[in-house]
Amino acid sequence: MSGIYETIRQKALDLEPQMRAVRQDLHTYAESGWFEVRTTSIIADRLTRLGYQVLTGADVCLAGSRMGLPPQEALDRHYALALEQGAIQPYAERAKDGFTGAIGILKCGEGPTIALRFDIDALGVFEEKGSSHRPSAEGFCSVNDGMMHACGHDSHAAMGLAVAEILMSLKSQLRGTVKLIFQPAEEGLRGAKPIVDHGHLDDVDFVIGNHIRQREGDYQIGLNTGGSLASTKLDISFSGKAAHAGAVPEKGNNAMLAAATAVLNLNAIPRTSQGVTRVNVGILQAGSGRNVIPDRARMEVEVRGATSEANEYMEQYARRIVQAAAEMHGCTCKVRVVGSAPSLYSDAPMNDRCLRVCTEKLGLRATPPASGNGASEDFAWMVDAVRSHGGQGLRFLTMTETGGAPHSTTFDIREEDLPCGVMTFCALVCDCMGID
Amino acid sequence: MSGIYETIRQKALDLEPQMRAVRQDLHTYAESGWFEVRTTSIIADRLTRLGYQVLTGADVCLAGSRMGLPPQEALDRHYALALEQGAIQPYAERAKDGFTGAIGILKCGEGPTIALRFDIDALGVFEEKGSSHRPSAEGFCSVNDGMMHACGHDSHAAMGLAVAEILMSLKSQLRGTVKLIFQPAEEGLRGAKPIVDHGHLDDVDFVIGNHIRQREGDYQIGLNTGGSLASTKLDISFSGKAAHAGAVPEKGNNAMLAAATAVLNLNAIPRTSQGVTRVNVGILQAGSGRNVIPDRARMEVEVRGATSEANEYMEQYARRIVQAAAEMHGCTCKVRVVGSAPSLYSDAPMNDRCLRVCTEKLGLRATPPASGNGASEDFAWMVDAVRSHGGQGLRFLTMTETGGAPHSTTFDIREEDLPCGVMTFCALVCDCMGID
Amino acid sequence: MSGIYETIRQKALDLEPQMRAVRQDLHTYAESGWFEVRTTSIIADRLTRLGYQVLTGADVCLAGSRMGLPPQEALDRHYALALEQGAIQPYAERAKDGFTGAIGILKCGEGPTIALRFDIDALGVFEEKGSSHRPSAEGFCSVNDGMMHACGHDSHAAMGLAVAEILMSLKSQLRGTVKLIFQPAEEGLRGAKPIVDHGHLDDVDFVIGNHIRQREGDYQIGLNTGGSLASTKLDISFSGKAAHAGAVPEKGNNAMLAAATAVLNLNAIPRTSQGVTRVNVGILQAGSGRNVIPDRARMEVEVRGATSEANEYMEQYARRIVQAAAEMHGCTCKVRVVGSAPSLYSDAPMNDRCLRVCTEKLGLRATPPASGNGASEDFAWMVDAVRSHGGQGLRFLTMTETGGAPHSTTFDIREEDLPCGVMTFCALVCDCMGID
Amino acid sequence: MSGIYETIRQKALDLEPQMRAVRQDLHTYAESGWFEVRTTSIIADRLTRLGYQVLTGADVCLAGSRMGLPPQEALDRHYALALEQGAIQPYAERAKDGFTGAIGILKCGEGPTIALRFDIDALGVFEEKGSSHRPSAEGFCSVNDGMMHACGHDSHAAMGLAVAEILMSLKSQLRGTVKLIFQPAEEGLRGAKPIVDHGHLDDVDFVIGNHIRQREGDYQIGLNTGGSLASTKLDISFSGKAAHAGAVPEKGNNAMLAAATAVLNLNAIPRTSQGVTRVNVGILQAGSGRNVIPDRARMEVEVRGATSEANEYMEQYARRIVQAAAEMHGCTCKVRVVGSAPSLYSDAPMNDRCLRVCTEKLGLRATPPASGNGASEDFAWMVDAVRSHGGQGLRFLTMTETGGAPHSTTFDIREEDLPCGVMTFCALVCDCMGID
Repeated sequence: MSGIYETIRQKALDLEPQMRAVRQDLHTYAESGWFEVRTTSIIADRLTRLGYQVLTGADVCLAGSRMGLPPQEALDRHYALALEQGAIQPYAERAKDGFTGAIGILKCGEGPTIALRFDIDALGVFEEKGSSHRPSAEGFCSVNDGMMHACGHDSHAAMGLAVAEILMSLKSQLRGTVKLIFQPAEEGLRGAKPIVDHGHLDDVDFVIGNHIRQREGDYQIGLNTGGSLASTKLDISFSGKAAHAGAVPEKGNNAMLAAATAVLNLNAIPRTSQGVTRVNVGILQAGSGRNVIPDRARMEVEVRGATSEANEYMEQYARRIVQAAAEMHGCTCKVRVVGSAPSLYSDAPMNDRCLRVCTEKLGLRATPPASGNGASEDFAWMVDAVRSHGGQGLRFLTMTETGGAPHSTTFDIREEDLPCGVMTFCALVCDCMGID
Repeated sequence: MSGIYETIRQKALDLEPQMRAVRQDLHTYAESGWFEVRTTSIIADRLTRLGYQVLTGADVCLAGSRMGLPPQEALDRHYALALEQGAIQPYAERAKDGFTGAIGILKCGEGPTIALRFDIDALGVFEEKGSSHRPSAEGFCSVNDGMMHACGHDSHAAMGLAVAEILMSLKSQLRGTVKLIFQPAEEGLRGAKPIVDHGHLDDVDFVIGNHIRQREGDYQIGLNTGGSLASTKLDISFSGKAAHAGAVPEKGNNAMLAAATAVLNLNAIPRTSQGVTRVNVGILQAGSGRNVIPDRARMEVEVRGATSEANEYMEQYARRIVQAAAEMHGCTCKVRVVGSAPSLYSDAPMNDRCLRVCTEKLGLRATPPASGNGASEDFAWMVDAVRSHGGQGLRFLTMTETGGAPHSTTFDIREEDLPCGVMTFCALVCDCMGID
Repeated sequence: MSGIYETIRQKALDLEPQMRAVRQDLHTYAESGWFEVRTTSIIADRLTRLGYQVLTGADVCLAGSRMGLPPQEALDRHYALALEQGAIQPYAERAKDGFTGAIGILKCGEGPTIALRFDIDALGVFEEKGSSHRPSAEGFCSVNDGMMHACGHDSHAAMGLAVAEILMSLKSQLRGTVKLIFQPAEEGLRGAKPIVDHGHLDDVDFVIGNHIRQREGDYQIGLNTGGSLASTKLDISFSGKAAHAGAVPEKGNNAMLAAATAVLNLNAIPRTSQGVTRVNVGILQAGSGRNVIPDRARMEVEVRGATSEANEYMEQYARRIVQAAAEMHGCTCKVRVVGSAPSLYSDAPMNDRCLRVCTEKLGLRATPPASGNGASEDFAWMVDAVRSHGGQGLRFLTMTETGGAPHSTTFDIREEDLPCGVMTFCALVCDCMGID
Repeated sequence: MSGIYETIRQKALDLEPQMRAVRQDLHTYAESGWFEVRTTSIIADRLTRLGYQVLTGADVCLAGSRMGLPPQEALDRHYALALEQGAIQPYAERAKDGFTGAIGILKCGEGPTIALRFDIDALGVFEEKGSSHRPSAEGFCSVNDGMMHACGHDSHAAMGLAVAEILMSLKSQLRGTVKLIFQPAEEGLRGAKPIVDHGHLDDVDFVIGNHIRQREGDYQIGLNTGGSLASTKLDISFSGKAAHAGAVPEKGNNAMLAAATAVLNLNAIPRTSQGVTRVNVGILQAGSGRNVIPDRARMEVEVRGATSEANEYMEQYARRIVQAAAEMHGCTCKVRVVGSAPSLYSDAPMNDRCLRVCTEKLGLRATPPASGNGASEDFAWMVDAVRSHGGQGLRFLTMTETGGAPHSTTFDIREEDLPCGVMTFCALVCDCMGID
């Protein structure tokens, strides 16, 4: 193990207590997508103090590309709460109105531009309060009702700040540019595209992301050739006409009949020979009263496909179904895209690079590359953007012991495992820069 | 009972054996809608011999208004059969290609024009062959497979010829014009409208129809204020695209999915506050093979309504549903009207007239006027046509003992009851002409 | 007009300002079904002061028969609010926990027992705040969000108290027993049955109810031979199993698919020849997140029928559908009856009596008896109970000018019209007692 | 190229004219599954003449395991036709009543037992009569309406007879046993299981099958690692109750509503994470008349899965759906398995063997092993049976130029390509026997 990689390894291990503290603080004040005001302010403050050039506010996400924004009223309410909970100015101010996320830039002369991506948002889950759940037992259970880091992005953010510290400490040895992208609103596939649309990936040669994952065997790092599905998230609303269901049922236009017809037919979209597809109507709410012909219905839908083409097939069929179901009952229908991602796969040379760096330079146990799991990940937008001008992308997995399943109310991770991911990020940056 | 009515009564009773023979002959050689070649030829021949001016062929039904015509091939095949079974020329020749039906006209100077309507077609039913069914036991079971007089129109035709004979015998006493309309294709509501569209009801002051009906109490004649439902019969076909269901299911456009969606939604058309409605998809045939995405589906549908407006509501909603169901799955859809009738009700003065004529002039027991039964009857087109220029319409019931239910394989009637209907028709003609 | 009827007429007119005040107070503090704590307390206090024997709390409704009770938490919260809004002790205390309603009894020696029923609950509607809505303009708009007297039961209660005052003033002339039943929770058809089940109608000879109605022509009182539909209100919940919709969709049991299948098939329950039927799924809520196979769905359903038999047909078919839809997708299903009523019709002699009393004794213009409107009314339980032991029932209509349609956010009535209903109630009591 | 393989190659080429004649004869008198009376008689006669021990009639298929048998009446009718068309006795007699198929056995002392399988049935397709379709232009278009060799099994049978001739000519050099299985009713996956159930594969060490396939590149033989899907074919019938749709719709039990509900929900069976699945309702026929509540519906359904487990999941879910859909509408439902196959994959050593034999011993161009296509093949039952006691299975493809797509009305093959398949079969037999 040569000098710089040994340094990286040691620093990563040394930063574990600090990561633990950051992760548990973010876990306590969990903030879901586009609400990450306090989270962003802490990250931006820290990056600034470390000496990074820091982009925040509208300089991170292209305003019009942001998908699935919460209502302004909810954003306002949370902004006030974030301030109460210690959000740091002026970063908090810049993050309000759905302008969360931060990018730290470190330029070290000639060399490739390498973007590392850390997603920072929580999920809309009510965290388990019982003492069998470690965060509750140890006092860092989320204090924000209906917001919980049930997917481990708190640890991603903590790892990102540790990476930031290590790379800055190695500044003199680096040759190229590092962009640390702290992305908001990954859940629902909402935050990556507006960062790409802003142009932040246009000059990037290598983009690297990471996700913590339940350990298999005794591996520390996982390699994934792909398998995340392309996906589109659609909010669909039907509008009809209400009428007294007993007295004049024929005067109504029944939006629930339209929605029920759509639900059955959406689930019945033909399977394809082009690979795995998925469709789910996850939420349906219809009607206003027992004795009133329902005049409105709303659905939260997602489609997925093994390829972007398969996903497109699903989306187009779904749009045709909901439109026709509305017309069938004299209703109208609005479809809004509130999230999307292409399919995600790592470039083979990057998988090879990662495997080599882990085993040869860091002494970590890494899995052989394997394929996917039916989930989706909007990091794919960044990989596609980099690949489109000849760059390469990689997503690796940091193995840990998880409590509960991802997205469940009892999800937890083990902070002792975070240094492995941190050192892998840093070592990959050096390797990409050709540092031996 | 004055002279002419007593004469009518006696002649009707005397004609019973002859009606029995005609009815059993027509029953044996049952011909369903637009196939009534032999039936028509026998009627036209008889009317001609009696001295009526007789209209046949394209002079009866307006060609383009005929609905639900069978395929030409089937018409050709049956024409050959009808000749074998004794159809009389030249009337048979004129009735081929779906130009069945005949009208006999008798002009007797100044006076009102009175149309009597007798429907003559059989149903698409396979008659019971067992000996517990009287027509089979006595040897007049239908010899035409899949055609059976299961609604009694054989008796209507027989009554019509008896009426023709009696009225001709009273010719010198009549004052006005009589039109005896032997209508084809009542089943499926197909034959009345083309007769109306030809103009045959334009100069009619009174139009009178009749149907045999299972006796209630000991009544001989029934009065109906209405209640037959307006109805439209629709043939609907969906066209999609076939594909191998295992290899490339996404290449298909599934017409069966469209049809199944339509079936559920058609049955779910909202009930209305405007009165009784009905909808039925009676036949659905879809697909071409187990492992092929179905590329076609066809449905036979009917809607009904207590009023023509309610029926129109159902028809328009049904059309919207099938159109949208087709679009939903990338299919196309064709809708063809193959039968229709407005709602039928007798004019109150005609009910009163009938009640008076029956009881005072013929000594028959007639029910008080009562309302309907959920069925439909295209005689309604004729009543509407006459009513539209100030005339009046009446439909009465001739009570009999029926075997089996109407439209069942064991339906039968009692010929002894036919004279009551015949005398009622004749007496109503005289009464309308002001003959005392 | 004889003495006592003239007295009634005059007193009713004199009480108009008082009724206006009561009605506007109740309108301001509208309380929906089972929440009528303040309303009940005011009524019970007034009846007590007038000298009635008063039943409240568990003496009114049989506890176990109460349908569609709100959650205890909501009852508790509203109880506290009612006290703030001036509910009167000890009646409020007795009305809490869903024991609203009151019965005032006046015994005047030998004679028939006559029950008058006044329903007192508001609807779950948010009242219009704009100044074009008179209650808002004049300051008596509901202060309870989501509770509004949008069906006029505030006026029914006010009329009931006026009737109470008049009858008490005539006490010495009466011969028999009067029961004034102030019924809770009519909306949703929840409160009548528990009063019947308690036995309060067991000794009643005549039961009389009333509803205000938009005036037709210049009539003051309306007579209804019937036509309110029998109805059952069902809450239906489906339970399945959640699973990640992308990763392992086959591990779920999709409760929304079950519910959507049920919605289509419920609407497709065949029409019947037995008379008008209705079905509505008014509310459907399903699923817990976009990317989760829905593990639960709940529906608020109602069925109706022209007769109790037709309603029973609908209910049984509906139960079969939801059960099968659940099984189809490996889910379970619970069905809870939360409201019900038989069909309502007045006894013909009572209609005659009412017409005679109105025209001959009170000089009011009453409509000829006519039939119904597709709505339902749980007063039918009381009529059925009285009829079952040989008594008679009547429901009449008090005609008024309404703002907005019933159940809409802008519904209003004209207090000047209330005396007509009050005098009709009182005069009917006297007439039933044989007072001339 | 050593001696015996060179001999095989030359004989196969020499037999081309004979194969062409056999194939065109079988094409002319195409016989679909369980009707292959004439086909079987020709094969059995030929095998007998060549000197094989020949099994026919009930010695081939286990009677009770035969799936999807046609009605006896159709079998009888076709038997008469087959005799007219030159079926050879006594083999025809033994093949009637659905006992088609033949097995030729050749024992050559010690050595492995090798089964070769040739399927012989036609499809239910009406062959194109136009002159652009070679079989029609050259006079060997099917004379049996609705039966056509649209999948090339005529060529499989012709190849089988050529293989039989070559192997018999090499008899003295062979060391082991050869079973030539001419299987009936492959279409619909009906004929393989009863042969397996009879025990014919119990002593087999290697089983080899073949299918012609549209050429890719300039390959002559194709290798398939698998990919045929497990599948079950289900015939489903719903029984309800008929009723007049206008008069008494509530008296019916609507089997079409049950079927339509089933169609939508069958197509909506959740996708699985266990691999590819398929479902198709290929045929639906429901109802008996436009104005009758449909009392019956029948569906032809198939499910498929990448694994037998995935197929089982689909079948069980499908059974649950149709059962529940029937119950929902008061109907009953019968499910009959009319065909089935596990998933098919070749054993890797057999693929290697085939590749080696083709290239090294026969000089044929063979594709590298590749995976599947979404179709199913009941040869899988034979491979599974052989594999279950330690044997191996192989399915290879004989590349040809096809007219029209498989199963289409214009499918055709090029007889010049058949010798490649024939020599591959023979050479594999020798190689399995260890002949160099």
